[in-house]
Amino acid sequence: MAKSISFARGAPSLDIVDVQGLRAAADAAFEADPGGMTAYGTAIGYPPLRAWIAERHQVAPEEVIVTNGSMQADAFLFDALVEAGDSVIVERPTYDRTLLSLRNRGADVRMVELEPDGIDVAAVERVLAAGARPKLAHIIPNFQNPAGYTLSTAKRERLLELARNHEFTVFEDDPYVALRFEGAPLPTMVSMDGENVVYASSFSKTVCPGIRVGYLVGPAEIIARIVRIATHTYISPNMVAQAIVHQFCLSGALERSIEKVREALRERAQTLCETLERELPDARFVKPTGGYFLWVDLPRGTDVAALFEAAAERGVLFVKGSDFVLDGAESSLRLAYSGVTPEEIEEGIKRLAEAYHHLTAAASEDAA
Amino acid sequence: MAKSISFARGAPSLDIVDVQGLRAAADAAFEADPGGMTAYGTAIGYPPLRAWIAERHQVAPEEVIVTNGSMQADAFLFDALVEAGDSVIVERPTYDRTLLSLRNRGADVRMVELEPDGIDVAAVERVLAAGARPKLAHIIPNFQNPAGYTLSTAKRERLLELARNHEFTVFEDDPYVALRFEGAPLPTMVSMDGENVVYASSFSKTVCPGIRVGYLVGPAEIIARIVRIATHTYISPNMVAQAIVHQFCLSGALERSIEKVREALRERAQTLCETLERELPDARFVKPTGGYFLWVDLPRGTDVAALFEAAAERGVLFVKGSDFVLDGAESSLRLAYSGVTPEEIEEGIKRLAEAYHHLTAAASEDAA
Repeated sequence: MAKSISFARGAPSLDIVDVQGLRAAADAAFEADPGGMTAYGTAIGYPPLRAWIAERHQVAPEEVIVTNGSMQADAFLFDALVEAGDSVIVERPTYDRTLLSLRNRGADVRMVELEPDGIDVAAVERVLAAGARPKLAHIIPNFQNPAGYTLSTAKRERLLELARNHEFTVFEDDPYVALRFEGAPLPTMVSMDGENVVYASSFSKTVCPGIRVGYLVGPAEIIARIVRIATHTYISPNMVAQAIVHQFCLSGALERSIEKVREALRERAQTLCETLERELPDARFVKPTGGYFLWVDLPRGTDVAALFEAAAERGVLFVKGSDFVLDGAESSLRLAYSGVTPEEIEEGIKRLAEAYHHLTAAASEDAA
Repeated sequence: MAKSISFARGAPSLDIVDVQGLRAAADAAFEADPGGMTAYGTAIGYPPLRAWIAERHQVAPEEVIVTNGSMQADAFLFDALVEAGDSVIVERPTYDRTLLSLRNRGADVRMVELEPDGIDVAAVERVLAAGARPKLAHIIPNFQNPAGYTLSTAKRERLLELARNHEFTVFEDDPYVALRFEGAPLPTMVSMDGENVVYASSFSKTVCPGIRVGYLVGPAEIIARIVRIATHTYISPNMVAQAIVHQFCLSGALERSIEKVREALRERAQTLCETLERELPDARFVKPTGGYFLWVDLPRGTDVAALFEAAAERGVLFVKGSDFVLDGAESSLRLAYSGVTPEEIEEGIKRLAEAYHHLTAAASEDAA
């Protein structure tokens, strides 16, 4: 079989990771602060990195906790705010790991349709009017996983208004924010309302995933509660990794890395869209303006579970749309273009189209 | 006030951390496996380090998970095995964070007296005979925290027999095992019984705490359950840190580091015992043969809470014995000698003795 091409995982290919920059950052960190990075720290994270993040977000350090990756941060936040039976609003579709994490906690997950300009806030209003009392609304505002869509400024404002009036917290989950490749960045919700928002982001998409450094920004009282949970869980997160990230940020490598990643992703997204249009004209999608993902709707009735099998036989992997919802999305799929080169994208989409045409031909024969 | 001297924290001083070895290991790791260490891994840990640990313990890789520090490993193990209301046997005294972690989970904690040759197994038998059905017995077999005591081979055997007969798991929590400075090492319980033991250890005491790399060894079925919990919590632990530790192990730096730490601790323990005998002859203790800690019993009726205050006024810190039990131990304290030089130990114990004599003089005056 031909070499496997994976559109499955939201992870960067090695060619867009600044390995030499990381190596230099590690060396600089051991030179600059051997004591601080080798000792136990505390659960707040490596203090210089925490201060750097706080300054970047123009908040006090007490409003920041730096964790072992942002998924660990999510888990702490859910531990702090969500009990079994609590309602939580999420986007439909949404990140499968978040969905699983909430369901494992026994949360009453309320999925609200995601539109190309973000969550359907009118539908959120209807859910609230019908009596839901959510603790949290989980929102991926920029280049959403899995859909690639971005929440408009007007919808950000309206959502915050609803959060204030209905006393729920907006969990602004924003790992892709730096990866915009066209248009101007939109204001973060945490910068618009410091009281009702907890913001999460990470260096996984701008430095590398293996470094496992993420963080939360939020009201000092909530952060203090999460620091206590984190202390009981692991004493302190990885000080060596956080000191390396701190030096990576200080040296200017972060900005260079972001620029490189953006350029590569812009090109990959462009190639993906063009190849889809050419090879698989039945695919409906919104051209991404940033991030890792493109969501494809195929004609109603397309069996994406069968397409998944047919594509796998041709050495092409993707994630089925149904993985990102509680039910439905059987004719949709997510394509991650972060880990594949333009050449692999062209080849992979050709094979995907072949699998699709094979299926539809078989279906017509069945119908005949 | 004079410079503060802390016998409080179980952490190494910077002079016994091999910073240059770590720096070289980081460089070697980025050279050897940039792809593996910068990508998302999986929750099993960095595969080459997992394989190295498995070989060291002569088990299959499937019997090992490498985590972000061993306290995180403990938390996963408790998540997997302990539900609210479940009985768990622990040593009295025991590590305060373990005690808190079990109590936070609503476990029914049964403390069993720790003797200089380890937990009182006859008392464990009585607890079992009285009808307790523990899920777990948490044991720190070598140079116990806080007492510094080591479990004898005969007691290891008896405990495993009880575990088999009463169907509980022995949680062998062994971070200090490599830090023996006299006598021959005893067999680990996990090497004596691969079915009823889950073993935890860490590189915090042999490489450095800030690197946050710990691990579990246990039956493949339990490890697989913990891998699932870990996946849902953080996808993967820190690959960069684990790759650095792996290179540190491969290069021989680990053995050199252990030798250096052992030598330093042997000298510190020696100085501590001699200074206590000279300055504070009321102190009763067992001379440590390894590890970080020495447990001091003062004469019955000594108010160690008051001593803590009087010592703090003189710039000396320790942890009260009462922090390591559910109740009692009011006349005991833990002295950690891992983070203080011999000179600091002499000066610190002089001040501690002065605080003690101040208290006892005041008490005699009250009695007069």
